[in-house]
Amino acid sequence: MSDESQELGITESKSHKPGEWYAEVVQKAGLADYAPMGGFIVTKPRGYALWESIQDALDGWFKETGVQNTYFPMFIPESYLEREKDIVEGFDPEVAWVTQGGHDELEERLAVRPTSESIIAPFMAEWVRSHRDLPLRLNQWCSVVRWEATETKPFFRTKEFLWQEGHTAHATDAGAWEEVWTRLSQYERVYEDVLAIPVLRGKKPEHDKFPGADTTTTVEALMPDGKSVQGGTSHHLGQSFADAFDITFVDEDEEEQTAYTTSWGLSWRALGALIMTHSDDQGLVLPPTIAPTQVAIVPIWQADTKEKVLDYSETIAEELEDAGLRVELDDRDERNPGFKFNEHELNGVPLRIEIGPNEVDDEEVTLVHRPDTENVVADREGLVETVEENLDAIYDKLYETAEETLEENVREAHSPEEILGTIGKHGGYVKTPWCGDQACEEAIKEKIAAEIVMQPLAEEGGASAGEPVRPDDDATCGVCGDDAEEIAYFAKSY
Amino acid sequence: MSDESQELGITESKSHKPGEWYAEVVQKAGLADYAPMGGFIVTKPRGYALWESIQDALDGWFKETGVQNTYFPMFIPESYLEREKDIVEGFDPEVAWVTQGGHDELEERLAVRPTSESIIAPFMAEWVRSHRDLPLRLNQWCSVVRWEATETKPFFRTKEFLWQEGHTAHATDAGAWEEVWTRLSQYERVYEDVLAIPVLRGKKPEHDKFPGADTTTTVEALMPDGKSVQGGTSHHLGQSFADAFDITFVDEDEEEQTAYTTSWGLSWRALGALIMTHSDDQGLVLPPTIAPTQVAIVPIWQADTKEKVLDYSETIAEELEDAGLRVELDDRDERNPGFKFNEHELNGVPLRIEIGPNEVDDEEVTLVHRPDTENVVADREGLVETVEENLDAIYDKLYETAEETLEENVREAHSPEEILGTIGKHGGYVKTPWCGDQACEEAIKEKIAAEIVMQPLAEEGGASAGEPVRPDDDATCGVCGDDAEEIAYFAKSY
Ligand SMILES: [Zn+2]
Ligand SMILES: [Zn+2]
Repeated sequence: MSDESQELGITESKSHKPGEWYAEVVQKAGLADYAPMGGFIVTKPRGYALWESIQDALDGWFKETGVQNTYFPMFIPESYLEREKDIVEGFDPEVAWVTQGGHDELEERLAVRPTSESIIAPFMAEWVRSHRDLPLRLNQWCSVVRWEATETKPFFRTKEFLWQEGHTAHATDAGAWEEVWTRLSQYERVYEDVLAIPVLRGKKPEHDKFPGADTTTTVEALMPDGKSVQGGTSHHLGQSFADAFDITFVDEDEEEQTAYTTSWGLSWRALGALIMTHSDDQGLVLPPTIAPTQVAIVPIWQADTKEKVLDYSETIAEELEDAGLRVELDDRDERNPGFKFNEHELNGVPLRIEIGPNEVDDEEVTLVHRPDTENVVADREGLVETVEENLDAIYDKLYETAEETLEENVREAHSPEEILGTIGKHGGYVKTPWCGDQACEEAIKEKIAAEIVMQPLAEEGGASAGEPVRPDDDATCGVCGDDAEEIAYFAKSY
Repeated sequence: MSDESQELGITESKSHKPGEWYAEVVQKAGLADYAPMGGFIVTKPRGYALWESIQDALDGWFKETGVQNTYFPMFIPESYLEREKDIVEGFDPEVAWVTQGGHDELEERLAVRPTSESIIAPFMAEWVRSHRDLPLRLNQWCSVVRWEATETKPFFRTKEFLWQEGHTAHATDAGAWEEVWTRLSQYERVYEDVLAIPVLRGKKPEHDKFPGADTTTTVEALMPDGKSVQGGTSHHLGQSFADAFDITFVDEDEEEQTAYTTSWGLSWRALGALIMTHSDDQGLVLPPTIAPTQVAIVPIWQADTKEKVLDYSETIAEELEDAGLRVELDDRDERNPGFKFNEHELNGVPLRIEIGPNEVDDEEVTLVHRPDTENVVADREGLVETVEENLDAIYDKLYETAEETLEENVREAHSPEEILGTIGKHGGYVKTPWCGDQACEEAIKEKIAAEIVMQPLAEEGGASAGEPVRPDDDATCGVCGDDAEEIAYFAKSY
């Protein structure tokens, strides 16, 4: 048993070796394994269940707001990708190429989709004839491949990853802007209401937009190690893709017009953020919203009390299940309670219910919160409500802790030394006035690998680009000292 | 308008040119388009919604019966595929090969998954240690690629197709058999209860098993053109994959044992069977179980009756929606009722509700069944129940028609001439005693492209292979005249 216990436990420390710790949690909590090819992972049932929860939430919201799911081929002919080069200067994606089919060389190489604009846009052009065909909102849940030669970090950095990609066409610029903000808000909602992670909303600087986009908007989440994660992006593509791929329509006055398009995507990187944000040196921590098992009931018996403890536990399990909670009654004979506690902690079960003979006699149970081991003795009577309250309390704790981390880690700086020093010492975000020149970002990036991850927006117009937050009139760029008309958030990022 | 109407209608005949007719229905009903690369299709929203309905049904049943979803990489190293060759003689799948990543040649070619046994089995071997880890039931919903150079037929024959593939390991042969039958029954259920298509259950002949399998079981559906569709297969893999990939476990007596494995899959070919079975020269026909829109309400007004007709129609639409029905109120101004009728017929909406001023005055509605244009005038009072009854009646009609076709098209034959003549004249299945020699199948196949698609089973043991149906003691092979101990169903197939 001692061998197995050791194998079960997390050996690395989140604060000292966050990278190693993360890899260990992912594997030991049964979320993913490394595939034989570098850069690929195998998503195990417990990890995939988390992805399914994110899918369920987002897919429902998408459908409520007019999105239709589709499936486009996973291969894109090279000539189709090339066509994008007219609008996307220097876009040379690192793609995987299929060059052989069966025993034959293909006449034209096929890219495994790195993203699908170049194959979806031509079909949108076919399908859109009249203003009545707009807005057209398509989405697909699929995997994409980007052949980047970086170190693999499950869910954060893998050559193949799962995501959804939405692609829409609109009659007006205002319609496209509404779309951009609708999707960004849904991404924010999935982080804040499902994953218990507060995010910052904003736009990417001009030089860091999605290739071909007019504007890239983003939600950014701060990880406990001080780095920012780009949690999801929603792009206003203006008319550039529509021009390149002839997405035009006849308007109400029988005039031909060019459409406006958007695209937006959220990947399983959200799982990386989830694991990284809440978990600890005992293993995975999950908010009850997404945990496959919300409550683990661990009965504690001796031979002479086994029957009454188990009977009592079973009625409780049933009652909670009937109320719609996801419950596991851990009545395994071959494991002792201590082993079970450790295992459920490792796997991130938010609430544990301990039931021994005393609990049975007193018609009580003991509830233990996963995140902080807070103990509550509760009456058997009204237990469903008590459990629901405790699950809510656990969610709130996780969210509040993450929110405090975020709030404490947005700092201002007004000189290159201050920017470098602050990020070097604390990590997190450094907010500074910025002249808008990419060279100023480069100067910081070279020294400390931090970049501008986000620029805040004062007012997101429901149907317009919204107004960026402006610094004071006499503000000067935190890097070069020139006049500054923008605000930039510097951070290291995943 | 006349141009558009023509574009809308189906021009080919199902009975005279089933292939062309099928292709036209698929495109004009908005299910799929052809992709730029031969052999690939784009699945449009209306087609994908049908696939989602099949997924929802099957995925729910899988989860109720212990299956966990996973995601394995879409690429498989060539050496992993090679490893299968030990057990699978002559298995040389026609796969698409990735040979370049970014700008570099890969050291080892990667196959785009044609099926995932060879990448899943090694991980099963890792994950299974003890009898307590069994049964292990994994499934993934994904796309696979098979580089076959045949003519493209959307959903029936495409180089890339969507499917689910289940892979399980069990401690005992009996456990594996239970699994095989459980999945085959779920496939049967999705055809019979969701798609309104009766199927035949049985096993494939020895020489036509899945490579490496001990037994391949199948559900077969008869298409109106007389060909059989393999609707889903469930394979008992015995211990061959477990031997080859070392899927072993320690049993209760601390002895090392080899596991038994199964695999089972159902692809979007089910959509092909759905479209082909029920649709007609007016377009798509769908059973209400799977139709994205179950009821189309078409109000018929003049300027002076518009308001009252629309008001009445809206309350009806609301009432039906509140009852959980999928309803479209087609109140478009720019289309006349005739156009709308045609469009909803083309798109396969099972039930149309026509509402004119007379219906409003009489507190009635007119219901029209899509499959046979049967008309019913029904009271406004109690309409939810009436609509539900009519939807059930439509389902029953579709199922019964398909069942009659199936029953009428299983014929016996006892000589090669009779087999060839019967299939040549009627299509369908020809049932004949068979000696078990593949050469006898070849003799038929050479002449008429029909093969043994299924062998019936008398008793499927819940936890065993079951007994094949035996012919009479003195039966002789319908092809060669030798003693026959088996029954074979010959048919042409998709
Ligand atoms: Zn500057
Ligand atoms: Zn014979």
